[in-house]
Amino acid sequence: MIRVTIWYEYAQEIGVLKREMVPGMSDKDFEFFSDFVKSRVERIKEVYPKGLIGTLSEALEKDPEFRITLTNIYEKDYGLPDELLENTDVLVWWSHVLQDAVPDSLAMKIVKRVQKGMGFVALHSAHKSKPFMYLLGTSGTLKWREDDFCRVWTVNPAHPIAQGIPEMIELQEEEMYGEPFDVPKPDDNIFISWYRGGEVFRSGCTWTRGYGKIFYFQPGHETSPNYHNPYIQKIIGQGIHWAAPTVYRENFDCPNILTSPESLCK
Amino acid sequence: MIRVTIWYEYAQEIGVLKREMVPGMSDKDFEFFSDFVKSRVERIKEVYPKGLIGTLSEALEKDPEFRITLTNIYEKDYGLPDELLENTDVLVWWSHVLQDAVPDSLAMKIVKRVQKGMGFVALHSAHKSKPFMYLLGTSGTLKWREDDFCRVWTVNPAHPIAQGIPEMIELQEEEMYGEPFDVPKPDDNIFISWYRGGEVFRSGCTWTRGYGKIFYFQPGHETSPNYHNPYIQKIIGQGIHWAAPTVYRENFDCPNILTSPESLCK
Amino acid sequence: MIRVTIWYEYAQEIGVLKREMVPGMSDKDFEFFSDFVKSRVERIKEVYPKGLIGTLSEALEKDPEFRITLTNIYEKDYGLPDELLENTDVLVWWSHVLQDAVPDSLAMKIVKRVQKGMGFVALHSAHKSKPFMYLLGTSGTLKWREDDFCRVWTVNPAHPIAQGIPEMIELQEEEMYGEPFDVPKPDDNIFISWYRGGEVFRSGCTWTRGYGKIFYFQPGHETSPNYHNPYIQKIIGQGIHWAAPTVYRENFDCPNILTSPESLCK
Amino acid sequence: MIRVTIWYEYAQEIGVLKREMVPGMSDKDFEFFSDFVKSRVERIKEVYPKGLIGTLSEALEKDPEFRITLTNIYEKDYGLPDELLENTDVLVWWSHVLQDAVPDSLAMKIVKRVQKGMGFVALHSAHKSKPFMYLLGTSGTLKWREDDFCRVWTVNPAHPIAQGIPEMIELQEEEMYGEPFDVPKPDDNIFISWYRGGEVFRSGCTWTRGYGKIFYFQPGHETSPNYHNPYIQKIIGQGIHWAAPTVYRENFDCPNILTSPESLCK
Repeated sequence: MIRVTIWYEYAQEIGVLKREMVPGMSDKDFEFFSDFVKSRVERIKEVYPKGLIGTLSEALEKDPEFRITLTNIYEKDYGLPDELLENTDVLVWWSHVLQDAVPDSLAMKIVKRVQKGMGFVALHSAHKSKPFMYLLGTSGTLKWREDDFCRVWTVNPAHPIAQGIPEMIELQEEEMYGEPFDVPKPDDNIFISWYRGGEVFRSGCTWTRGYGKIFYFQPGHETSPNYHNPYIQKIIGQGIHWAAPTVYRENFDCPNILTSPESLCK
Repeated sequence: MIRVTIWYEYAQEIGVLKREMVPGMSDKDFEFFSDFVKSRVERIKEVYPKGLIGTLSEALEKDPEFRITLTNIYEKDYGLPDELLENTDVLVWWSHVLQDAVPDSLAMKIVKRVQKGMGFVALHSAHKSKPFMYLLGTSGTLKWREDDFCRVWTVNPAHPIAQGIPEMIELQEEEMYGEPFDVPKPDDNIFISWYRGGEVFRSGCTWTRGYGKIFYFQPGHETSPNYHNPYIQKIIGQGIHWAAPTVYRENFDCPNILTSPESLCK
Repeated sequence: MIRVTIWYEYAQEIGVLKREMVPGMSDKDFEFFSDFVKSRVERIKEVYPKGLIGTLSEALEKDPEFRITLTNIYEKDYGLPDELLENTDVLVWWSHVLQDAVPDSLAMKIVKRVQKGMGFVALHSAHKSKPFMYLLGTSGTLKWREDDFCRVWTVNPAHPIAQGIPEMIELQEEEMYGEPFDVPKPDDNIFISWYRGGEVFRSGCTWTRGYGKIFYFQPGHETSPNYHNPYIQKIIGQGIHWAAPTVYRENFDCPNILTSPESLCK
Repeated sequence: MIRVTIWYEYAQEIGVLKREMVPGMSDKDFEFFSDFVKSRVERIKEVYPKGLIGTLSEALEKDPEFRITLTNIYEKDYGLPDELLENTDVLVWWSHVLQDAVPDSLAMKIVKRVQKGMGFVALHSAHKSKPFMYLLGTSGTLKWREDDFCRVWTVNPAHPIAQGIPEMIELQEEEMYGEPFDVPKPDDNIFISWYRGGEVFRSGCTWTRGYGKIFYFQPGHETSPNYHNPYIQKIIGQGIHWAAPTVYRENFDCPNILTSPESLCK
C-alpha cells in the first residue's frame, strides 16, 4: 500500500485568488491573476467536468495499491499539515499561478521529507514550484506557449515508468514547454516531447535526493484534456510506483564515531 | 597542438565498392550497394565539390591548434596503420555503407587507443560503426528517413562544445535520425534535434571510456549541405578540442601490490 | 520466476587446465597456470567443501523466485549453448584464470543478449572477463593483493540492492582489489570497500546497456570464505532481482520510416 | 583572469563567537561553542601561523590567473555584499561552527549566482553549509572523528582536477569523514579517501547546477596541517580552474514564445 497525497492549487477551478495568500504580489499583478483565474473556470469545467485533478485522481484510484488523499492550497496549512506530510509516501504536486504563495518553510519541510525517503512526482507547471526548485537546486526555467500539438517520445523504453507505453503518444493539444530546461542532468531521461511549433523538451525525467526519488512529467495543462488520456494516466501511476520509498531514514545526524571500527575489531 | 585524424569511407565520393572489402556481403547486397554508391557520386559532387570531408576538413584547418591528417578506408590498413593511430590525439570518424568492412581487430585497436586517452568524435552514421558500438557497449540503433527539415536545439548551453552556438540551428535538409537511440545514458546530452516529420533525437552526446572522451554529433548526411554550415563546423571543432586528451595512460596492467601502502609507511 | 544461469570456470576446483582451451597461451604460462590450479584444489575444498559456486548457488536456491542453472566452462559450447543463453534472464558470471579461453564470439553473443534485456551479474575477477569488458567498453584494470581484511561500506543505502544490509560488513579475509578501477562512471555506486593494507575500491556498481542491467560485486575470492556470509549472499541475490529484465527487445533493426508521423496524422 | 573569492569563518582563528551572529542558538550551546572556538586559537596558530586560509590563499596566489579576495563572516554583510558576490567567478567556501549564522537570504543569493555560472568550491566542513545543501538539495550528512591518518586515492586520473596528482596522497593527520555521505550522485567522483580507523569517503566530487560548476574537497581540518601540502594546494587550485565559468546567463525568465519557430520559417 502506497500512501499517495495529491496536492494542487484549485484556484483556477474555483476562480478565486485570495489576497492574503499572495501578500508579496503587487496590486496590479493581483488584479491580473484574479481575472486570469476567473477566466479559466468555464474552460476547465468543459474539459474536466470533475476537475483536472479530480479526473487524474479518479484514474489513479483504480490502482488497488494506492490510498489517495486529495488536498489543495486552500485547506489548512496550505493543504499540507505536518501530520499529512509525515504520512505521505509519494507526494504528487500540481501548481501554477500560486507557486510563490507556498511558504518557504513548507517547501523546506517537503525537501526534508523527500530526503528521508518520500517520493515526489512533479506535474506540469510544478517545474517552478518551490519544492521542485529547492530539491533540484536549479531554477527550472523553460520556454512556453499555450496550445500546441505534442508528441511524447519514449527514449528509455526499458525504464519501469515506460512499461506498456507505446514508443510515441500524440496529444492533440498541450502547452508547449521548450528547451533549454534548467534542471541538473537527470538520472534518467525517459520521455522527450516534440511540438509542432518547432520545439523539443525533456518531458519525463528522474532524480534522487537523499533516500527519495523524484519524477517530473510535463503533460497536464489545465485546459488541455490529457489527464483523460489512459497512457498519460498510466505513466503518472507508474511514476508513483517507481517513486515509492524502498526505505526511510530517521534523522539527519552527523554522528561522531569516537571509537573507530578498527579499534573495535582488534 | 592536437593531432587530428579524420577517417572516412570515401566510397560514395568515388562511386566504387571493392568486393574484397566486404567478403561477408552477399552478392545481391554487393550489387545493390555498388549501384547505390555509384548513384551518389554526382549528387555529392553538387553539394560538396570538394567532397563531404574535404569541406569539413578545410573548415577545421583554420584552427591553428589542429594538425589534421585525412585518411580513408581505401588506403593501407583500412586507412589506419598502427603508426598513424598511435600518433592521433583525436580520431574523427565518418562511416556509412562500409561499417562491416572495418575489421574487428582494427576496431579493437581503436577502442584500446581511446581507453589510453585518445578522443573519438563520431559523426552521423558512425552510430553503427564498430569502434562506436564497441566503445559504448550498445547497438546504436535508431530510426531514419532521408531529407527532412531539422532544428538542432542546445539543451546544455554551458557545455564547452556549445559555446558561441545559438540556442537553435535550422538545417533546411538533413537525414532524420529518431529515438529511441540505443546508447548508454550520456555523461552530457548537449543537443536535441527536432524534425518536421515528427521525430526527436539526442543529436549531441558525450561519454568517457578509460582516459578517453567520446563525442557523437548527428548532422552530416552526405547529400545534405550541412558541413558548409559555420555553426556545424564550429560544434565539430569544439568537440575535437573537448575530446583532446588531458593525459595518456601507458598500459593496462593489473599490478600485484605485494607490499601494501600500510606496511610501507609504518 | 527469474531464470538464473550461474557460469563459472571450475578449473581450480578440479585442478585441471585443458591445453586446447588456451591455445594462445605460451607453454611456459600453461605450465605455470596448470600448477596454479592444481595447487588450489585442496585449499578450495577446505574453505568450500561444496565448491565456491556450489555454496553460493545453495544459498540462492532458497529464493523461490529463482530457477537456477549451474554451468561451467568445461561443458558443451564453453557452458553456454545458444539455447541456454536464450533462456537466461540473469547471467551470473565468475571467471578468473581462463578469461581468454572464452571465445570472442561467445562474449559478443552475451553482449547482444544483455542489450536485449538479460541482466548480467559480474562477480569478483569477472572485472577482466570478456563479456564485462565488451559491455562496458573499458579495460577493467585494478590493483590486487591476496588475503587482506576488508570492510564493505554501503554508500547508497536506499538502493534496492542494499536493503537489509548493514552500513558496513567486515570480511576477515578477501582479495584486495584497489583503485583506480577502469570502468565507465557507474549509474550507481552502492558499495565502497576498505582494505587494511591501505586501499579503497568501488566494490558494488551498476550500469545499463540497451535494455539490460549490469551489477558488479567484488567479494568472492576462491580461497576466502565470503560466499558463506549471509550478507554477501543477500547482496548477490538482490543484485539478481535488480538485474532481472523489465522487458525484452526483439531485434536490432534501424527502421526506415518512409512515412513520417506528421504525414500520417494530417 | 579568474576572480576568486575565498570566504571563511575566522571564528576559531580569533577565538570569538558573537552572540548576535547566532540568535537561534541556545545559551548553553553558545557557551559551549564560545569555549570551543577559544580553545582552538593556540592550536591553529601552531599549525597555521598565517592562518588556515591565509596559508591556502598564499599558495593559490602564486597562480597568475587568480585575482584573490579574502573575506570572512565578521565583515560587512556576513562578508559577501552583493557587489563582491556579483564580481566573483569562483567562490571558495570554508565554514564550520557558524553554518547556521549565514542567513538563508545570503545562501539563496549564492545559489542564484551559481545557477548563473559562478563556480563554487566547498572545502571540508562546508558539506553542511547552507549554500552547499541548497545547491545540492541534500543534507550533506556523514560520520566524523578528529585526527586520523588519511590516504586520498585518485579514482579518476584523467579528470582535469587530478592532473599532476599522484595516485595516492598520504596525510598524517586529517579529520575522518565517513560514508554514507548524503549527496546526489556526483557527475564525477575524483577522489576516495581511506582512514586508518576503518572508514572510506568520496572526498572529491563534482556537480553542475544551472550554468555553474561545484567541487567539493574534503581535506582542510583547521588543526591538521594539510593546507601546507603542495598536492592539496594543487588540487584546490585545479578545482578553481575547473569551476571557472565558461559563460554566464543573465536572467531566469520563462519566455512566452508567442510566435513559434515554425511559423517564422514558413
